[in-house]
Amino acid sequence: MSEIIATYHFNKVINHPEAFAEKLAVGLTVGSWTDLTTLDQSHLQGFKGRVVKTEILADITEVTIGYPVKNVTPDFSSILTTVFGKLSLDGEVKLVELDLGDYATYFPGPAFGVQGVRALLKVEERPLVMSIFKGIIGRDVTFFRQQLKEQALGGVDIIKDDEILYDVPELPFEERIQAAAEVLEEVQQETGKRVLYAANLSGPVFQLPEKAKRAKELGATALLFNVHAYGLDVLKGLRELNLGLPIMAHPSFSGAISGSPNYGLSYGLLLSKLTQLAGADFILFPAPYGSVPISESEARRIVTESSEAFPVPSAGIHPGLVKRLIDDYGRDIVINAGGGVHGHPRGAAAGGQAFIEAIAAYDGEEPGIAYKEAIKLWGTS
Amino acid sequence: MSEIIATYHFNKVINHPEAFAEKLAVGLTVGSWTDLTTLDQSHLQGFKGRVVKTEILADITEVTIGYPVKNVTPDFSSILTTVFGKLSLDGEVKLVELDLGDYATYFPGPAFGVQGVRALLKVEERPLVMSIFKGIIGRDVTFFRQQLKEQALGGVDIIKDDEILYDVPELPFEERIQAAAEVLEEVQQETGKRVLYAANLSGPVFQLPEKAKRAKELGATALLFNVHAYGLDVLKGLRELNLGLPIMAHPSFSGAISGSPNYGLSYGLLLSKLTQLAGADFILFPAPYGSVPISESEARRIVTESSEAFPVPSAGIHPGLVKRLIDDYGRDIVINAGGGVHGHPRGAAAGGQAFIEAIAAYDGEEPGIAYKEAIKLWGTS
Repeated sequence: MSEIIATYHFNKVINHPEAFAEKLAVGLTVGSWTDLTTLDQSHLQGFKGRVVKTEILADITEVTIGYPVKNVTPDFSSILTTVFGKLSLDGEVKLVELDLGDYATYFPGPAFGVQGVRALLKVEERPLVMSIFKGIIGRDVTFFRQQLKEQALGGVDIIKDDEILYDVPELPFEERIQAAAEVLEEVQQETGKRVLYAANLSGPVFQLPEKAKRAKELGATALLFNVHAYGLDVLKGLRELNLGLPIMAHPSFSGAISGSPNYGLSYGLLLSKLTQLAGADFILFPAPYGSVPISESEARRIVTESSEAFPVPSAGIHPGLVKRLIDDYGRDIVINAGGGVHGHPRGAAAGGQAFIEAIAAYDGEEPGIAYKEAIKLWGTS
Repeated sequence: MSEIIATYHFNKVINHPEAFAEKLAVGLTVGSWTDLTTLDQSHLQGFKGRVVKTEILADITEVTIGYPVKNVTPDFSSILTTVFGKLSLDGEVKLVELDLGDYATYFPGPAFGVQGVRALLKVEERPLVMSIFKGIIGRDVTFFRQQLKEQALGGVDIIKDDEILYDVPELPFEERIQAAAEVLEEVQQETGKRVLYAANLSGPVFQLPEKAKRAKELGATALLFNVHAYGLDVLKGLRELNLGLPIMAHPSFSGAISGSPNYGLSYGLLLSKLTQLAGADFILFPAPYGSVPISESEARRIVTESSEAFPVPSAGIHPGLVKRLIDDYGRDIVINAGGGVHGHPRGAAAGGQAFIEAIAAYDGEEPGIAYKEAIKLWGTS
């Protein structure tokens, strides 16, 4: 019998963990057991939760329960409601792992993934570099074009919208996509380099499929999506449209679900495993460098779980961190920077170039000028 | 200038709260300020966040920031990403209040609300009573019909699906709705009483509008929805279809977002205020009686924020708690019970009747037999 296996951390030592877990496994599925007739028990056996394991880990009780897949449908809402619907309301309990087993085949996963995105960009094996707009809120399409072009000229692979830029009158979604298609075509003519632009898909949820299709028609090359503010099933639905556009999952709002050590879902599970299953090609996450309160082990799990999609360590990234990023997470990553591009002494084009030079330097080439300038400003840690 | 006002609790004493808040207000909107030219500052003033207030409350720093509505679109995803997207990733910070001001008019709110639901049921001013299926997982339509009829015969106003029952082969969504329409028509013929059945709307997110319309065609009288596992914008989108069906918002999964005292959104904000704005007619929440770790003050806020929708205190409710429920939350509530209906010594019909009698007793009538039996079993606290 196929099962979905959920592992929970209860932030206390539970004295009789097996009995506690059995009560949960029954309560969260068939609801009662000892009251049932033998005939009913026999029939309902296939729908009853099963205690897989319990363990006391210092001050935490780890409980692992298997849920028959017959109880759910292949939607995150269904699975999360079954394994963590009522239980999330029961005090200090964190869902740390969810193993869908065979049932994972019902979830699409990335359309492009690492290899597909590399093929689009014609970049075979170096880490990719992504740049983010800066100070775009309240600006118009002229500002957008200028900043896009400057960033693209530095040699970065991808430029992404600010996740707080929506479909606003100053700079509408369609206008951004059309402007970007033109600017990036110009850049390709000038430099030979293809650059992707990830436009932030936003707006009323049931209009998103049409907006995404329209984006593709207008020449969009990727989509950014605030998946955790919308819901994982919305990403899954968009992915299942097979738009031919890679999708970048932004971690915005995920701290509301994963930030606490004792509640919600672990970052590795939410940001990476489930988001990849839903169809993200890029998984942005806060890098554990600088001030972001994500631990190195959590970050490592995010990268490990992102086995098909590109993990994108973000926040406070500058060229001096490139060596550490590659050493920590390998070459199948996207190095993502905002201030670390725009803050370069010679502007955003030199800022992007500095990242490309940093990767080349990692691979043994002579350090370039832009890279040296960046290191002088920001150091190497 | 219209603003959305967000209030945060940082779980620490911040030494220079005004400066800290100003940095946030700028960083979460226009991104930089002192680097800008006077001309740019003048232009961007209308897009910049504004510190409304800061205050130290014992060990907590309360920060209130106003965000220009020009920065967002009328979607929860947009607003939550702006006010709590990046910030949710920044450690121990909780979004405790969100005041949309005039912008709230862009959000639909309940289609029926308290008065609309009362009109549907022809129940003028007493608290409503709702019963939940028990042990329905894995059962077929014969079992469903029997249990539905038994519950309905007790005189309850609404019967809701178990939130963990999806559109499964044993008991598909459409089959449940058709069976319920027949059974509840029979009951109305026999007793004169109209009973609503809230069917759990589930499945792939972009199929939900069609499923909801089909449900209405098949005679559905209400929908149950796991809004927090799907996302608030999905509820808003369903509400905006104007289906002519009241929608019941289940609190499943909300503990992942609201359970922690130091992270996420407060229960009152998420479960009640935002869910009502999104269009829920009923707001289910765990009552602070018994073992549920929700405080009395949080529960009171949930009820207060639910000014148009019916608050539905749930979990561990039995007839002996009716007096306390009415005293605590007033008469515009739905009293919701599972075990407190099905566990009655004479079965679910008597169980429902006991609740109706409990309300009558509160209003000065002689206590009925079913109510007395329930009190004997469960007591009055």
